[in-house]
Amino acid sequence: MNELKKPIILVCNDDGIEGEGLHALAASMKKIGQVTVVAPADPHSGMSHAMTLGVPLRIKSYQKNNRFFGYTVSGTPVDCIKVALSHILNEKPDLIVSGINYGSNTATNTLYSGTVAAAREGAIQGITSLAFSLTTYDNADFTYAAKFARKLAKKVLQLGLPPDTILSVNIPNLPEKEIAGVVVTQQGSSRWEEDAIERNDMYGNPYYWLNGTLKLLDGSLNHDEYAVRQNYVAVTPLCCDMTNHTFLDTLNRWNLQT
Amino acid sequence: MNELKKPIILVCNDDGIEGEGLHALAASMKKIGQVTVVAPADPHSGMSHAMTLGVPLRIKSYQKNNRFFGYTVSGTPVDCIKVALSHILNEKPDLIVSGINYGSNTATNTLYSGTVAAAREGAIQGITSLAFSLTTYDNADFTYAAKFARKLAKKVLQLGLPPDTILSVNIPNLPEKEIAGVVVTQQGSSRWEEDAIERNDMYGNPYYWLNGTLKLLDGSLNHDEYAVRQNYVAVTPLCCDMTNHTFLDTLNRWNLQT
Repeated sequence: MNELKKPIILVCNDDGIEGEGLHALAASMKKIGQVTVVAPADPHSGMSHAMTLGVPLRIKSYQKNNRFFGYTVSGTPVDCIKVALSHILNEKPDLIVSGINYGSNTATNTLYSGTVAAAREGAIQGITSLAFSLTTYDNADFTYAAKFARKLAKKVLQLGLPPDTILSVNIPNLPEKEIAGVVVTQQGSSRWEEDAIERNDMYGNPYYWLNGTLKLLDGSLNHDEYAVRQNYVAVTPLCCDMTNHTFLDTLNRWNLQT
Repeated sequence: MNELKKPIILVCNDDGIEGEGLHALAASMKKIGQVTVVAPADPHSGMSHAMTLGVPLRIKSYQKNNRFFGYTVSGTPVDCIKVALSHILNEKPDLIVSGINYGSNTATNTLYSGTVAAAREGAIQGITSLAFSLTTYDNADFTYAAKFARKLAKKVLQLGLPPDTILSVNIPNLPEKEIAGVVVTQQGSSRWEEDAIERNDMYGNPYYWLNGTLKLLDGSLNHDEYAVRQNYVAVTPLCCDMTNHTFLDTLNRWNLQT
């Protein structure tokens, strides 16, 4: 990064171009960099690392208050990153920030999250990338989250991240003075106790709607979901390698040839 | 598992209910267990761990040659697992097998794959789960892959897997006698050199279609993509924890509080 030049920052999310958290994040990043916003045209929560293979994508410019704000892509968060890098940005960005998501992306939600996946796609493409999520769907106040995001972005632009690694940050929906602190965490084991609600439509045919609550299965501040429930900001380094390395030796002894 | 009872096996995929690899896998599993097939109504390649949040899901029974074959779910591979466990199966299965996918799910593709995600969702829900992929899209011959899947399923039913861990198996599209062997691998670093092809529609408006080739970045039989290119079956244990554990100490020294 040229020290004399403001860093180029790509801002994306999974809640779509109209997401309040996206606008808060973009406004915050504009204080430290040259920002381009590229977001899904429609909400894409829970889309994980999905990409669009079977249909073409469209890019449109998007205005807010009659002024250009950014671009929409007719696909997933990961599509947004791919298309932004290949066809929207003129040069490789110094940083990708994704969010600020409505709802936490801790523990098992890390796997379902489009917000996290957009950042991970950035890392795969060799770009320093961060994901930000606020712990609520309702009465969201992005003020502190956007401020923390800017502070972390500055730090990461200075210090860098290891290859194929992002930081996923979960932030309590609280005013700054009520934040307990910032902790480095690992992806927790908390997961959904879930069910699909069964109802009948007006013709008497059943339909199913996924539903559930995230059950806390972690008991220390080293784990993301526990930490945010204790009002801490949780910063989790995530990588792209899903190999269970500790099981490789055992598996080698299974004698799979026979 | 009751030793006197055949294991209950749930078969899923991401290519959809009509996928040839699904039918080959189901037929093979019927030789060792009580099989229920639950698959997406339509193809869902590249859907990763996406789940359907905004719309309800439908379950339909599906016939093949005028005989009941299984169920379709109007959603993603992960939706199939969730709905199968909550509303289709009467008891928890002993095993989930996903595939056999058209096309390999090695290296970075591990993150994009719906086939792998279906198995991972099984592991999250505490069920021993396996994913199978054939290394080709064209002229697929699932004969050896289906046989190997059955052999591995029997072994896994005996030995079990660690919590939150699946085996993702990539199998060359070759007759058995041309298979070089079976190796235990880790997720490789190979990734797409990609671009989105830009074309104009009949109105002169541009559209973008994701495209690319998987560039080999691994050089040993310990890595999945390299191994399958050398005609080996690659068996990779994958976990659900994406934490970059080796970076935690460094990150703790960043002093994120200030």
